Amino acid sequence: MTVDFNNDMTGAIDTISQQITSSNLTGVAESVVGLPTRELVDICERLNVKQRAVVFRLLPKQQALEVFETLAPPLQSDLVSALRDSEVASLFAGLDPDDRVWLLDELPAGVAPQLLRGLPDRERELTAVVLGYPQDSIGRRMSPEYVTTHPGLSVTQTLARIHAGLEHAETIYTVPVLDDGRRVVGIVSLRNLMSASGDTLIDELMKSPHTVKATADVEDAARVCADLGLLALPIVDSESRLVGILTIDDAVRILENEETEDAARQGGVEPLRRPYLSTPIRSLVRSRVLWLLVLAVGATLTVQVLEVFEDTLNAVTVLALFVPLLIGTGGNTGNQAATTVTRALALGDVRSRDILRVLGREMRVGFFLGLMLGTLGFAVATPVYDLGIGVTIGLTLVAVCTVAATIGGIMPLAAHAIRVDPAVFSNPFISTFVDATGLIIYFLIAMAILQI
Amino acid sequence: MTVDFNNDMTGAIDTISQQITSSNLTGVAESVVGLPTRELVDICERLNVKQRAVVFRLLPKQQALEVFETLAPPLQSDLVSALRDSEVASLFAGLDPDDRVWLLDELPAGVAPQLLRGLPDRERELTAVVLGYPQDSIGRRMSPEYVTTHPGLSVTQTLARIHAGLEHAETIYTVPVLDDGRRVVGIVSLRNLMSASGDTLIDELMKSPHTVKATADVEDAARVCADLGLLALPIVDSESRLVGILTIDDAVRILENEETEDAARQGGVEPLRRPYLSTPIRSLVRSRVLWLLVLAVGATLTVQVLEVFEDTLNAVTVLALFVPLLIGTGGNTGNQAATTVTRALALGDVRSRDILRVLGREMRVGFFLGLMLGTLGFAVATPVYDLGIGVTIGLTLVAVCTVAATIGGIMPLAAHAIRVDPAVFSNPFISTFVDATGLIIYFLIAMAILQI
Repeated sequence: MTVDFNNDMTGAIDTISQQITSSNLTGVAESVVGLPTRELVDICERLNVKQRAVVFRLLPKQQALEVFETLAPPLQSDLVSALRDSEVASLFAGLDPDDRVWLLDELPAGVAPQLLRGLPDRERELTAVVLGYPQDSIGRRMSPEYVTTHPGLSVTQTLARIHAGLEHAETIYTVPVLDDGRRVVGIVSLRNLMSASGDTLIDELMKSPHTVKATADVEDAARVCADLGLLALPIVDSESRLVGILTIDDAVRILENEETEDAARQGGVEPLRRPYLSTPIRSLVRSRVLWLLVLAVGATLTVQVLEVFEDTLNAVTVLALFVPLLIGTGGNTGNQAATTVTRALALGDVRSRDILRVLGREMRVGFFLGLMLGTLGFAVATPVYDLGIGVTIGLTLVAVCTVAATIGGIMPLAAHAIRVDPAVFSNPFISTFVDATGLIIYFLIAMAILQI
Repeated sequence: MTVDFNNDMTGAIDTISQQITSSNLTGVAESVVGLPTRELVDICERLNVKQRAVVFRLLPKQQALEVFETLAPPLQSDLVSALRDSEVASLFAGLDPDDRVWLLDELPAGVAPQLLRGLPDRERELTAVVLGYPQDSIGRRMSPEYVTTHPGLSVTQTLARIHAGLEHAETIYTVPVLDDGRRVVGIVSLRNLMSASGDTLIDELMKSPHTVKATADVEDAARVCADLGLLALPIVDSESRLVGILTIDDAVRILENEETEDAARQGGVEPLRRPYLSTPIRSLVRSRVLWLLVLAVGATLTVQVLEVFEDTLNAVTVLALFVPLLIGTGGNTGNQAATTVTRALALGDVRSRDILRVLGREMRVGFFLGLMLGTLGFAVATPVYDLGIGVTIGLTLVAVCTVAATIGGIMPLAAHAIRVDPAVFSNPFISTFVDATGLIIYFLIAMAILQI
């Protein structure tokens, strides 16, 4: 099917939810059976928990598994709680070991042991390998099913190993080369194997491998795989011995999740675990209220600063007019710097040790921006109000922009250095912080210039 | 090499730039020759234009090409302008057709025809296919080098075609199946081919294909490839005939670029075209100044609103104390909603037609958030100031949060509906907009409650 981006399925969804509400199961079955898997996943992501289980039960067994595999783990977990034990056991056994662990991490603690006991021995052992690594490490997201070869084997022997691994291996297109101690010493692609003559030794064919330790952060490892465009990245233990592989499709899924989290945190929201339309209102409120409260409490600082300068404010009420403009501009400048540096950090373009270079750069950028805005502010405000106000506004803009860009630029790096997610110093956080600082700068400059 | 995330190369960079400054070319050569390609790319991304050309010239030819291929197109373009014509011609011929077009899109208009003339005929024709599609369409980023098969061919015949395509095809792991009219009617993986017996017909083996039209938006197409975890996605013309393929590593690169752009726009910054540390200060200033000016001009609205209510402000100066807190909270609530909806839109979880559902959801979420914050604000402000101020602040928070979440939630959808990048309604933009609205709400409520 050619994917058509204009066709949205709002219509189909409405029909299906109506059919479910009116218990018209034959209607639902007619609506969903025969649809391509991708469309079924889209539909499932837009229904609520109960509706999703109803639709799911009506699917043929093989397609049900395909849909289940594609759903995000929190949605899988919803389904697990809505389906019968026997249905769950069969879905669980049908998953790959890495997908299984992803789901286990979502399920209530009591459910996992029971599901694991129901697995065939081999599957249980493979799952246990992955489960042995800490959460947030790449070990927990790798696949333990792979094909390997040895430098002393020939191309023909390696191809035979690939044939033997066709059914279970996560990929057969990239084959790690292991020495006698199971250490990864090279990598060959199936493409290179097919280009070579059968008696060529792997030793002559293999390339030097990129590997990542199983305890490495899941996002860092996924980014290596994606940045280098590797179809599969070998994952090793501390002795460089192979323990699993990360395929690029899993790397993409990991990065997409992480990017959703980063985007959310940057807006001061806890990441949603489910697609937006299937997230209940109370979860949306819960994802936002904590940050909003923290920020509001932080913002009481601005009230206190203004109270300190209340006499100044009473003497020259016109100063109050520019408060939102000045602190808003400071907030914007700070956000711009923070956004730029946070992304550079995520891409590995900047590291913690670059903090002094970033400090110097952002200070200069902020100063230039402030100079431009300040000149403009001075030119506009002086004729409308008076020279004192014009100078105050001009100088405040220069100072606020310089300070805001510097703070906004180094905060993400400072967070990274102490191993806190840089996105936690979100845009709203920086705005609030810069608001209070900006007010102090504004009133100090006003007092000096206007001699209040 | 095991990728070590703690090892940053600030030291190496400093050494190399010093060696270049002191014209110690032998030293530079010793520092860079023998380094793995990935590290060289990292180093090139952190040097300035001239230093990069110096390092690049010292690399062995094959590795120079590998580094060049991996660099972002704007950095490639920098190199092209710094290298000799003969060096450029050889690099250009060494690129894949899709990478070549990516670079051409970066180069000054005059350079492209000359470079194209220098290509061998076959390469020039392949490049022309890709160049024929509009910018921002997936046709311009696909590869025109692929292996295909036919439903009537056997597995053995298809494997022979794969062997013939080993050298040039972008991928051999996913093979589109074409009917006599070159329409894509199926897809087979090399893995399935290897599992089947040699005389099996492709017709029995092939699966129904996902395809995307060559004129589709580049980001939408890349997301289909990544979401479905496809190693390669066939790209077709309006008659469903194959014109190219998109491989997952290219899809990842496209999505990463787009996400960098989105992240930038969301912070009110024009996307940088080069890594942060290799971007000159004046480009950083340029990427921010326009948005900052637009926002500052927008923020003069707040000055005007405050002027309208100047009498109220003079009568009850204490009202001025809460201005930053109240409009800040409104801005934060609006940003939270906008962040959530923008990401849901990017992931395809929400579409333009869902606008009424989103409106209803965000209005309720904003109201609940406002109710909580308003109750708290009322409880804290009443004892410190008086009942009138307490009620004013409480009610303002309820109203501002409801309005801000609603505006923040529907703006990205409205932008998307009129085919504007939703990220343009950035967090700073929404803050500024909500600031003015929030002030009006605040003073209207204050006038009503305090009867000024």
